[in-house]
Amino acid sequence: MIEVIGLDGDDTLWHSESHFAEAHDTFAAVLAPYTAPGFDVVARHYETELRNLEVFGYGVKGFTLSMIETAIEVTDGRITAAEISRLLDLGKSMLTHPVELIAGVGEAVDALAGAGYRLVLVTKGDLFHQEHKLAASGLGERFHHVEVVSEKDERTYRRLMDRLDIAPDRFCMVGNSLRSDVLPALALGARAVHVPYGITWVHEEAAHDGEVPTLASLAALPAWLDGQR
Amino acid sequence: MIEVIGLDGDDTLWHSESHFAEAHDTFAAVLAPYTAPGFDVVARHYETELRNLEVFGYGVKGFTLSMIETAIEVTDGRITAAEISRLLDLGKSMLTHPVELIAGVGEAVDALAGAGYRLVLVTKGDLFHQEHKLAASGLGERFHHVEVVSEKDERTYRRLMDRLDIAPDRFCMVGNSLRSDVLPALALGARAVHVPYGITWVHEEAAHDGEVPTLASLAALPAWLDGQR
Repeated sequence: MIEVIGLDGDDTLWHSESHFAEAHDTFAAVLAPYTAPGFDVVARHYETELRNLEVFGYGVKGFTLSMIETAIEVTDGRITAAEISRLLDLGKSMLTHPVELIAGVGEAVDALAGAGYRLVLVTKGDLFHQEHKLAASGLGERFHHVEVVSEKDERTYRRLMDRLDIAPDRFCMVGNSLRSDVLPALALGARAVHVPYGITWVHEEAAHDGEVPTLASLAALPAWLDGQR
Repeated sequence: MIEVIGLDGDDTLWHSESHFAEAHDTFAAVLAPYTAPGFDVVARHYETELRNLEVFGYGVKGFTLSMIETAIEVTDGRITAAEISRLLDLGKSMLTHPVELIAGVGEAVDALAGAGYRLVLVTKGDLFHQEHKLAASGLGERFHHVEVVSEKDERTYRRLMDRLDIAPDRFCMVGNSLRSDVLPALALGARAVHVPYGITWVHEEAAHDGEVPTLASLAALPAWLDGQR
């Protein structure tokens, strides 16, 4: 019997990657006067992000610092302070962007809470930003608490289940990332459900053998859980 | 009987504010060619930080983004990309700086853990950076877990004690900030001990009436706790 449901936030409850994609469009437009047609500034930014991941961790603030670093590099230092200022503003607009729930999420979360499951938001990234998004989403009351973790691996999920004092077969993790939400939970003997999102950050892609429970929408989760009883 | 001890990290277990002060010296040196003698760029940076606090929250990444924003403002956009690159490097060096324990902390933490207290690191700022610092400090094994919170107020401490399932009179918070570590815990009926640090961030200063238990060093905490039994 599943008792606790871990829900990812970004691209599972609310749109996130689409805002990163929009930011990348603006970033490319700011750098367009300096770069040859076809030069992939987004790929360069991704390289910078990966290189900085062990210093910055996940989240929009590290994304923004890596945009500024990439902009200075690819322009050989010719980018102006006014253009860097635009990148700072872009980062701030991502942090203050209204939270847009994915279709069906509000009803699904209401149904899950109503059915007595304990809901925990399990998310990487920045505590401050994630708490802000949960509060702004209007879903905060439905959640028992928020677990912001610096990485979503087996060690993190083992510690999480220890802390919640819950056996693996009573915990189900739900999210859009096979690599972060689904595979490490399954490896520990917990349950997991994959709810794909339209865009996947390259970093979150993962290959896997075997079958993974997959739902097209969070709206299908309450019925799926009924089927597991 | 006190059972759980909440310990602040920055400037309670390890030096932090002194690194911010060093960073401010470098920041002022980078901007010196653009500013009139006596112009207080550090005060301007502090204004920017406060203005950005509700977007960035606490931590070095927000500090760095606010340095870049301030630098662009006070130079009227004349600062070069190479100089902004120095500010980026400054932020990274703060994030990767070796952890320097405050004198007496290692022995005090060993004694507290040995005496059977459950130790919880309660800290604001960036989860990724704080977990890195705890691991690098060598104290990680002594702590039950880390609570990274976005603000240290009464609401946060009430939720923390609920989550730990501990009555206020069995919880003692210890830290260098009256405003964040001591006064909100005392207001809830919990215990608290102030261990001042040489430098206090303006934002953490607080006035208070009444007497607050104050120790000159964490090294004195085990004996103080013995006296409370």
